[in-house]
Amino acid sequence: MSRRIAVLGLGAMGLQMASWLAKSFDVVGYDIAAERVALADKEGVASATSAKEAADGADLVLVAVRNRAQLDELLYGADGIAEVMKKGSAIILTSTIGIAPVEEVAVQLAEQGIGLVDAPVSGGPARAGKGDLLVTVGAYETEYEFAKPVLDAMASTLVWVGKAPGKGQSMKTVNQLLCGIHIAAAGEALALAGKLGLDQTVALEALMSGAAASFMLGDRGPRAIQADNGEEAEVKSRLDIFVKDMGIVTDAAKSVGMAVPVAAAAEQEYLLGFARGQAAMDDSSVIRVVSPEDRA
Amino acid sequence: MSRRIAVLGLGAMGLQMASWLAKSFDVVGYDIAAERVALADKEGVASATSAKEAADGADLVLVAVRNRAQLDELLYGADGIAEVMKKGSAIILTSTIGIAPVEEVAVQLAEQGIGLVDAPVSGGPARAGKGDLLVTVGAYETEYEFAKPVLDAMASTLVWVGKAPGKGQSMKTVNQLLCGIHIAAAGEALALAGKLGLDQTVALEALMSGAAASFMLGDRGPRAIQADNGEEAEVKSRLDIFVKDMGIVTDAAKSVGMAVPVAAAAEQEYLLGFARGQAAMDDSSVIRVVSPEDRA
Repeated sequence: MSRRIAVLGLGAMGLQMASWLAKSFDVVGYDIAAERVALADKEGVASATSAKEAADGADLVLVAVRNRAQLDELLYGADGIAEVMKKGSAIILTSTIGIAPVEEVAVQLAEQGIGLVDAPVSGGPARAGKGDLLVTVGAYETEYEFAKPVLDAMASTLVWVGKAPGKGQSMKTVNQLLCGIHIAAAGEALALAGKLGLDQTVALEALMSGAAASFMLGDRGPRAIQADNGEEAEVKSRLDIFVKDMGIVTDAAKSVGMAVPVAAAAEQEYLLGFARGQAAMDDSSVIRVVSPEDRA
Repeated sequence: MSRRIAVLGLGAMGLQMASWLAKSFDVVGYDIAAERVALADKEGVASATSAKEAADGADLVLVAVRNRAQLDELLYGADGIAEVMKKGSAIILTSTIGIAPVEEVAVQLAEQGIGLVDAPVSGGPARAGKGDLLVTVGAYETEYEFAKPVLDAMASTLVWVGKAPGKGQSMKTVNQLLCGIHIAAAGEALALAGKLGLDQTVALEALMSGAAASFMLGDRGPRAIQADNGEEAEVKSRLDIFVKDMGIVTDAAKSVGMAVPVAAAAEQEYLLGFARGQAAMDDSSVIRVVSPEDRA
């Protein structure tokens, strides 16, 4: 592949994706934080001194930003890449920023002949670093095919869920609805188990052996038990990501006239966690919102 | 084993457990509905003409009733078995009736020298019929050991979660909190997927491949999609069971001073389903509570 790829945004996910892709492609990376660029450089990612420099001449620009404001700044701000990107190139947007924003940005980019491949990813940094992500894509066919070699490299599971930008976000929104609820539910379950006098670790094992099992219960359960017992669990995924994502979930539901009471209750728990100062803690710490102070 | 076992309550679960146990033990069964006794008889379960007759002389009485009212009637009603059960015998209570009720009944039975093995089961009738249940037990050691051969036969996973009656119910309560939330969450997710224009079956498959996966999503998902599209899905587990069980969950949480907002939101969805006339439908039909009428 002689295709030239820029990776913009070298945060937890972007750095891992850039490093992995650099093993198979010609990758140049950029981040507004110089120390992130230096980290990527160590992993074999060519560095640029600006977003514009990285995107200039690139066939595909993989974007890993946090939210719509960062995306708008990256595209149209002082160091905005939209004006330097060539016709026929495409942006692979790996971020979860909501359905309507992606649809709007896709229209703007199309006016300049730039494609948008809506490809939000799931799986976390460790899996991003070995091409083991779940990638759900919404894109027109031509652009999907153009980006497919890179998407294939990033994903262990690649699902083309819809033939337009926005459908990847739709799928990710549904995915996050479940993930966000399951983590909050794991918190309620394990806090209740403790309060009812059960051994939480024995309970977790029994729960995972039957119909109560979920991926999130198995993955977050041990860290939730730590958090419930006053320990600081390792931060594998920050709590404030779910403040953002559950906001996207309830907004999306409202936009189509749907009530989602269980998702809304989970959203409130993340907001309560945020208000309690847990934004940068592991998302499993949401258990503390419901955990009684006088736990045994 | 020359131990004599009575199985009282031959509903969906009781009939299957009795039939399975009759392959290895001397089992006599009874139900207030004569047609259920006839069904059990066909499966090799000796029949009795009253609960008292079945329990008289039994070493272990396995009880599969729906709720506390039925249990009280069975123990102390007109055909009440407590007065005929022998000292040193024990009741294996497989029902989910709540923590406090079991603790109270255990005290009453202990006064007569009858043990109570609190052993709520999970897994549904099909698994009950082949000894493939998850059984979480709360019992004193002597009684647990006494009942263990029968519990081992019923269970593929047997967990002795606590050394007193009530602890089995506690564990089951936590289990049901998760199961009830996960089914309601699957409904919200799949209804939202449909409303956002995604193919629900493709979405379900993608969701099950990643962090959004749960046992309930995989098991109930296909039937939820049927229910969302106006079909009558096969009834594998009735919706009103979760009206009862989520009531037990929120009561248990209140009793220990805990808020469980996500479980409470799920409980409301089952109550809404009940109010909409879905009590006897499959529990996956809870999706209809949130599904918009104008779905595409």
